[in-house]
Amino acid sequence: MPTDLLAYGREVLARQPFSVLVGAQLDVMEPGRAQLSLPMAEGLLQQDGFVHGGVLSYLADNALTYAGGSVLGKVLTSEFKINYVRPATAADRLVAVASVVGSGRTQAVCRCDVFLEANGERKLCAAAQGTIRKAD
Amino acid sequence: MPTDLLAYGREVLARQPFSVLVGAQLDVMEPGRAQLSLPMAEGLLQQDGFVHGGVLSYLADNALTYAGGSVLGKVLTSEFKINYVRPATAADRLVAVASVVGSGRTQAVCRCDVFLEANGERKLCAAAQGTIRKAD
Amino acid sequence: MPTDLLAYGREVLARQPFSVLVGAQLDVMEPGRAQLSLPMAEGLLQQDGFVHGGVLSYLADNALTYAGGSVLGKVLTSEFKINYVRPATAADRLVAVASVVGSGRTQAVCRCDVFLEANGERKLCAAAQGTIRKAD
Amino acid sequence: MPTDLLAYGREVLARQPFSVLVGAQLDVMEPGRAQLSLPMAEGLLQQDGFVHGGVLSYLADNALTYAGGSVLGKVLTSEFKINYVRPATAADRLVAVASVVGSGRTQAVCRCDVFLEANGERKLCAAAQGTIRKAD
Repeated sequence: MPTDLLAYGREVLARQPFSVLVGAQLDVMEPGRAQLSLPMAEGLLQQDGFVHGGVLSYLADNALTYAGGSVLGKVLTSEFKINYVRPATAADRLVAVASVVGSGRTQAVCRCDVFLEANGERKLCAAAQGTIRKAD
Repeated sequence: MPTDLLAYGREVLARQPFSVLVGAQLDVMEPGRAQLSLPMAEGLLQQDGFVHGGVLSYLADNALTYAGGSVLGKVLTSEFKINYVRPATAADRLVAVASVVGSGRTQAVCRCDVFLEANGERKLCAAAQGTIRKAD
Repeated sequence: MPTDLLAYGREVLARQPFSVLVGAQLDVMEPGRAQLSLPMAEGLLQQDGFVHGGVLSYLADNALTYAGGSVLGKVLTSEFKINYVRPATAADRLVAVASVVGSGRTQAVCRCDVFLEANGERKLCAAAQGTIRKAD
Repeated sequence: MPTDLLAYGREVLARQPFSVLVGAQLDVMEPGRAQLSLPMAEGLLQQDGFVHGGVLSYLADNALTYAGGSVLGKVLTSEFKINYVRPATAADRLVAVASVVGSGRTQAVCRCDVFLEANGERKLCAAAQGTIRKAD
């Protein structure tokens, strides 16, 4: 495991063309916990002006993976589920906070909360849970 | 409900900036069933050259929504889960096929298979299931 | 909504033949939160002496429902997912703690942790998340 | 892997005290597919006379596990999700049909449909999907 988890995680994120396309940033990566954020942009919306659900699911997927990777090293996302709690409207950015709730030698169960952040206040817009598996 | 579901669905997709950004196409929308596809592109990958999981989850989310919308009209995705079955490598396109497995007056339970398609052959790379709810 | 939520919840539980069969007890029911527990018994096991996964899923399902019901009144469980974190071995009882993470007029998204409790110490053995819907 | 999968599966089921308690029967176990059924009984209900959701989740969990075990051998259920499609009312029995949708060396992704069966006719009452993992 790299000693500087955050620098390592950011270097990986920079090599994910899709994460670069949507503009994701890694704010926190420490043992058992990760935070990704996404500044709001026109290209992230759906037809009614809300953030597209697929953007929230991308963000949850990736945050869960970073949380799992923080304790397992090189990982794959095995599966996850997401509940949309509130439509994501105008905000400054989306923030996904993920943590490990249980882990073994080969996999970790993680949870993630995705928030809308505006003027420093956060509102929950999605909740996710999934399994991250150590890559062989 | 519009009489020409496919034309309606394509018109909605064209107004989703995020779907336009990733390049999604609606191939099929008929009562109880929808198919979305995504031509492969560099911008959809992660650090190892595979399609980013978030792209597969976007595609599953949207295909589930179109399937639910085909029987309920204007809808929201309430929740879904996705299992990644196989890393999505070089292929011509991704194809997400979704169908309604049960529906009531206000919500539909749908399933979706996401395939890698190359030279006309399909391999399953993800399986999803979720709830689509009629918008109020 | 009844004023004494816990008494109401216990009365409902006593009328669930399946909950009586397995021996579930409602320890807590207050706005946004519920706790169910299950004293260990031979009949709850699988072939290797661990608690059957179906017992953990029953307990999570019911605790999620009580949490949702604590804010919505009469409810149905719409869906849930559960991750098994650790095999549930010899213990005094299982304890499922559920809470509402987001709710609207007609549905609530809830999470649940299922613990093994022995000598007053708790270890997480499963994590669940689901949607509880107001009954029509 | 035992040559007679069904006999093997039934022998395992007979050693699951919880499955014996609820009265589950293994009807089919063949490579990639399993069917469990549960004759209706008073003890399986909730307060409104419907089958308790926890019974459906037990049945789905176990059928998914048998399907995964049919291709992987000795297994554990890693996780699953279930959507309740229709309340399970008076019927002759519940039937859970599970199949493998994708599998590798160490895990299988499976789906399960749970039906109410009365007079030989089946109605879908729940749909599940999950991950079954080879036991170490």
